[in-house]
Amino acid sequence: MDFPDAIHISEEGPREGFQFEKGPIATARKIELIDALSKTGLDHIQIVSFVNPRAVPGMADAEEVVKGITAEPGVAYTALWLNDKGFERALATERLSITGSIVLVASDPFLMLNQHRTPERQAADQHAILELYKAHGVPVERCGVMAAFGCNFAGDIAHERVLDLIAQQVAMAEDHGVALKRVGLADTMAWATPLAVKRLVSAVQDEFPALEVSLHLHDTRGMGIANAYAGLEMGVRHFDSSVAGLGGCPFAGHKGAAGNVCTEDLVFMCDEIGISTGVDLEALSECARLAEDVVGHALPGSVMKGGSLKRLREKIGASA
Amino acid sequence: MDFPDAIHISEEGPREGFQFEKGPIATARKIELIDALSKTGLDHIQIVSFVNPRAVPGMADAEEVVKGITAEPGVAYTALWLNDKGFERALATERLSITGSIVLVASDPFLMLNQHRTPERQAADQHAILELYKAHGVPVERCGVMAAFGCNFAGDIAHERVLDLIAQQVAMAEDHGVALKRVGLADTMAWATPLAVKRLVSAVQDEFPALEVSLHLHDTRGMGIANAYAGLEMGVRHFDSSVAGLGGCPFAGHKGAAGNVCTEDLVFMCDEIGISTGVDLEALSECARLAEDVVGHALPGSVMKGGSLKRLREKIGASA
Repeated sequence: MDFPDAIHISEEGPREGFQFEKGPIATARKIELIDALSKTGLDHIQIVSFVNPRAVPGMADAEEVVKGITAEPGVAYTALWLNDKGFERALATERLSITGSIVLVASDPFLMLNQHRTPERQAADQHAILELYKAHGVPVERCGVMAAFGCNFAGDIAHERVLDLIAQQVAMAEDHGVALKRVGLADTMAWATPLAVKRLVSAVQDEFPALEVSLHLHDTRGMGIANAYAGLEMGVRHFDSSVAGLGGCPFAGHKGAAGNVCTEDLVFMCDEIGISTGVDLEALSECARLAEDVVGHALPGSVMKGGSLKRLREKIGASA
Repeated sequence: MDFPDAIHISEEGPREGFQFEKGPIATARKIELIDALSKTGLDHIQIVSFVNPRAVPGMADAEEVVKGITAEPGVAYTALWLNDKGFERALATERLSITGSIVLVASDPFLMLNQHRTPERQAADQHAILELYKAHGVPVERCGVMAAFGCNFAGDIAHERVLDLIAQQVAMAEDHGVALKRVGLADTMAWATPLAVKRLVSAVQDEFPALEVSLHLHDTRGMGIANAYAGLEMGVRHFDSSVAGLGGCPFAGHKGAAGNVCTEDLVFMCDEIGISTGVDLEALSECARLAEDVVGHALPGSVMKGGSLKRLREKIGASA
């Protein structure tokens, strides 16, 4: 076991949740949740996506949300965009932390179904993105592989394929004078098990010792926290997660089905193992309950319901 | 990693669920679920508890349930009892697999709150139980420790305490001419993390190499599957679990909150790692959906919603 002393969490709950939830959520309530998250110790919060409002109505108020938050010093507020227009909308807010990344999808059929692109087009697009970021002076440090553990349309993904896609991105970045520092492995369709996480992370660490691994894990098949634990044992120090498990997956047929791994459950596990997250679990659990109120239904997170052990220990200590 | 080739699952969903659920469930529907579970490959199903019907109204029909099931050859149907009277009711059905076990609670305050007993009384009771089983010719192979990982009323439980309780039980059993084969570690109040599982299992394996460890894990804080994974890495071959995550925990404030670790999610993880369970995941997932119908609300299991990967692989293979 090679646990890190500390991990860094990229909170994606607001963006994931507001994008996925069916019901309209008032802009003021979105801002309320983001402002509450800003006071938990989280220092990286993805709050909106700049996408076509006809395709994603829940993000039509993205600019208003960004404008409305009370920015906490030390917190990087980020956004997701999928094209030049979205990137320019994000830049125009002048309130977001703008960093660039490139990404390749490990499954050709998923790439076509999800993004209507061929692998050749995808590679060309990454070059164009690197040019765009250079033109705007936006730093690029991250690359990533989507569907790195398997794909509902292509099946299991070989390690060689993932390693090759990372090598392609390192080379692309070098072509543009960029030295990558991190590689994200995304279990986009929840094919990973803890053993698969260990094996792939190990292969990536061996082949690319200069790149730090980050994990983006989905909980569709209940493996989210177990997969995160496997990552911790491999020394992984960067995780994406969603407060309360906000967000969702198109394969689950009902509300409350799990999307991303749940932030407060991850923080709880780290607290108990002795890995620092910088996040106050009690404040975060309050945010998770607030998130349920904001979306109007139960969310999958467990610790917000089961409670932390710190409180119990304090109570026992006080009565002893 | 010291994965077992195969694990054995004790399915506790029916007993856990019928005991926990508020709404009355028709006897015929209980039987329907048990009969469906009997055809999944599960060979050990705990179907009822013989307890005071005034305290647990959901178990008032225990005898009728036992009488009504279509017993599948090779499946051991078991029951839970807490005293002589319950044991005699179980015996009287003449349809159950009757084996004995002893157990000690690692937390004195929990023992008093939950069972109104002192440690001295508890030890005396275990001796009496061993006598009772001997008198009825009932085999005893298992001992166990409840609250082995921590307790809401006593806090963290030291390994030394757990090891001492196991040693006490081995000695008790020897006093009665019984050689124990297995020790169950129960995370009764969901204090365990994967690291804690590894550490305690390792300590028990080192101290009692003749005893096989089994794990009874609760998912109250979302660690259930991760804790089971940790057990698998330690070579643990016996797990208690509940289909669909049936059952519940008194600390969770709403329906659908997790109780025991979910059987089909555990089977899914084992399938993907290559550990045999003898259980057909598709049939079991059908049972999980049936369980939701029987109890009338959503249950926490993930794989029944997210789907297995076997089906996807078959579909991809067929279209390739």
